[in-house]
Amino acid sequence: MYGQIRIEHNLSCKAKPRFEEDLGFGRHFTDHMFMMDFEEGKGWHDPRIIPYGPISHDPSAMVFHYGQAVFEGLKAFRTEKDEIVLFRPDQNAQRLNRSSDRLQMPQMDEEFVVDAIRTLVRLDADWVPRKKGSSLYIRPFVIATEAGLGVRASSRYSFVIIMSPVGAYYEEGLQPINILVESHYARAVQGGTGSAKTAGNYAATLKAQALAKEHNCAQVLWLDAIEKTYIEEAGSMNVFFKINGEVVTPNLSGSILDGITRKSIIHLMKEWGIPVTERKISIDDIVQAYENGTLEEAFGTGTAAVVSPIGSLLWNGTPMVINQGNIGDLVRRLYDTITGIQYGGIEDSYGWTISC
Amino acid sequence: MYGQIRIEHNLSCKAKPRFEEDLGFGRHFTDHMFMMDFEEGKGWHDPRIIPYGPISHDPSAMVFHYGQAVFEGLKAFRTEKDEIVLFRPDQNAQRLNRSSDRLQMPQMDEEFVVDAIRTLVRLDADWVPRKKGSSLYIRPFVIATEAGLGVRASSRYSFVIIMSPVGAYYEEGLQPINILVESHYARAVQGGTGSAKTAGNYAATLKAQALAKEHNCAQVLWLDAIEKTYIEEAGSMNVFFKINGEVVTPNLSGSILDGITRKSIIHLMKEWGIPVTERKISIDDIVQAYENGTLEEAFGTGTAAVVSPIGSLLWNGTPMVINQGNIGDLVRRLYDTITGIQYGGIEDSYGWTISC
Ligand SMILES: Cc1ncc(COP(=O)(O)O)c(C=O)c1O
Ligand SMILES: Cc1ncc(COP(=O)(O)O)c(C=O)c1O
Repeated sequence: MYGQIRIEHNLSCKAKPRFEEDLGFGRHFTDHMFMMDFEEGKGWHDPRIIPYGPISHDPSAMVFHYGQAVFEGLKAFRTEKDEIVLFRPDQNAQRLNRSSDRLQMPQMDEEFVVDAIRTLVRLDADWVPRKKGSSLYIRPFVIATEAGLGVRASSRYSFVIIMSPVGAYYEEGLQPINILVESHYARAVQGGTGSAKTAGNYAATLKAQALAKEHNCAQVLWLDAIEKTYIEEAGSMNVFFKINGEVVTPNLSGSILDGITRKSIIHLMKEWGIPVTERKISIDDIVQAYENGTLEEAFGTGTAAVVSPIGSLLWNGTPMVINQGNIGDLVRRLYDTITGIQYGGIEDSYGWTISC
Repeated sequence: MYGQIRIEHNLSCKAKPRFEEDLGFGRHFTDHMFMMDFEEGKGWHDPRIIPYGPISHDPSAMVFHYGQAVFEGLKAFRTEKDEIVLFRPDQNAQRLNRSSDRLQMPQMDEEFVVDAIRTLVRLDADWVPRKKGSSLYIRPFVIATEAGLGVRASSRYSFVIIMSPVGAYYEEGLQPINILVESHYARAVQGGTGSAKTAGNYAATLKAQALAKEHNCAQVLWLDAIEKTYIEEAGSMNVFFKINGEVVTPNLSGSILDGITRKSIIHLMKEWGIPVTERKISIDDIVQAYENGTLEEAFGTGTAAVVSPIGSLLWNGTPMVINQGNIGDLVRRLYDTITGIQYGGIEDSYGWTISC
């Protein structure tokens, strides 16, 4: 498929950052990157691993003008037995194809994508941190590279994979976050690109994100763009609410991302016998549950932090403090289970981890 | 402002394409380009004109991942008196700032932007075609260049201007086009980025654009994303309808682009005493006018073609043929007037043309 991956070793490897210290997120990059090109008529070709370094494009390259750009985010973990594993990379490869389809970009063989990731991780294995909570963040992305103006699908693309050692999202363990419920700006709408992981979706959120910061909130919780009533997702997390013993999360309406963490924890909760429903949830449902004391927990899910307890929701200028701002039992159990599976402390009976 | 523009001449200029032949759009680029960089704390700096050529970025540069990218499109014309003029470049500079603001990108001094464009055009003046209908298309754009992952506004940007000699949009003179009225996909929604000229908006339209092609239509006419009822704009044009002697165009609702051609022809029509109204227009209004025989003309407006007569609208599988597929008197008059002003055949009493 697409030919053998050619490897050009980096002969002047960088000094690694001190993995014990705060690595942050996406600040350091490993020694190598994967690249492969697409050209109409020729398809994907020339898969290669080369030294990490700048990529060069004609200034008329379409990605700069018309925004055909999709990406993924997943992690490699160093387990307690010193193995390196990926968490559900097949799901990322699938979603990358779904995103590409929405943006009129070419499909890729999903097994090849997983294989490319594994090959790259193996080569830069020394970059996978040892410290629990740390990991190697992997960013596959595809961009339109045809030189030429005019709104149309590009005839050329590059698929690139870069990797960054990242620290624990919560250095001090799980920490509840504040979230601003946004009703002025919109992130996505049915028929738009909300369910694709495409660059433009993120640029569209920055103004609201700045508002959130002003209100001392970590992220925005989006409401649907049409009725400004139904909960969608947070900046880079899907969201869950535990109300009176039942867990609810917005259904995949077409305007939110089909999160892999979301999917995984729904699976776990079902197995645990916790009632979980994917449905439309209005902000009024949440306010009501809050007011009558049945809103027990709220949390976000995503690759970056796995789960993030929501300590308070700021809606219409009033904060709703959830579970007295404490970390709930459910979110704790989910966190321990998923990270347990990722770092090997808990046996993976789901086939979610793939060794490199 | 930002310092003197440094000029590095291209010592190995390209052979120019034959301007008499079909130049197409955005296929050839001139010998030079303008660049200027932004860095937080330092602001915009190092304005320079350099030989046209590739630009290089870290693969983690934010534009590839989070889509902060805005652009403009305007033209330089060679007049009958062999002067070179720009059409309302101040408007493009203003809109660039508005787009940047929506995407949390830094503002630029608008006079400086116009000055940069003029300086670049003067340097590559030989690239402005002589043939009536041809012009030099100018593409200013700003992209996020900070190296690093994590959804946030970039701390670094590049502002680039590239230029392409382009042929007449309609080689054979005005030609009516077919348009597909789209109700499945959405381009933008209130609270989103529809009124900004940002890259992601265009990627979002490609799938519908492909559908249009399948139906032998040149572009899509978007309906509002909420009620799928109100007309928004076409792929890269604002739209106008002449119904029973009155001209109507969708009002600037927040989800469409504030087109400079739109603004200019509204101005002209008002001056000519033609009633013109900016308001909500439902697709049903159009169907009704079509059915009762009062839909006299329909056309799109944009920098690329100035005006494009709409020969037919394909809605729900049925084509509505407008004005028997002929070019209307109004669209012809508007075309002749605007191109007359641009090429100098008609005196510019509006101050719209700026010489280089
Ligand atoms: C918009 C958005 N929603 C949800 C998620 C969570 O998805 P996942 O669990 O696959 O990381 C992410 C982050 O990846 C995201 O960017
Ligand atoms: C989405 C969209 N609408 C409308 C227009 C027309 O705007 P203008 O007349 O300023 O070229 C354009 C093209 O520039 C466009 O891209």
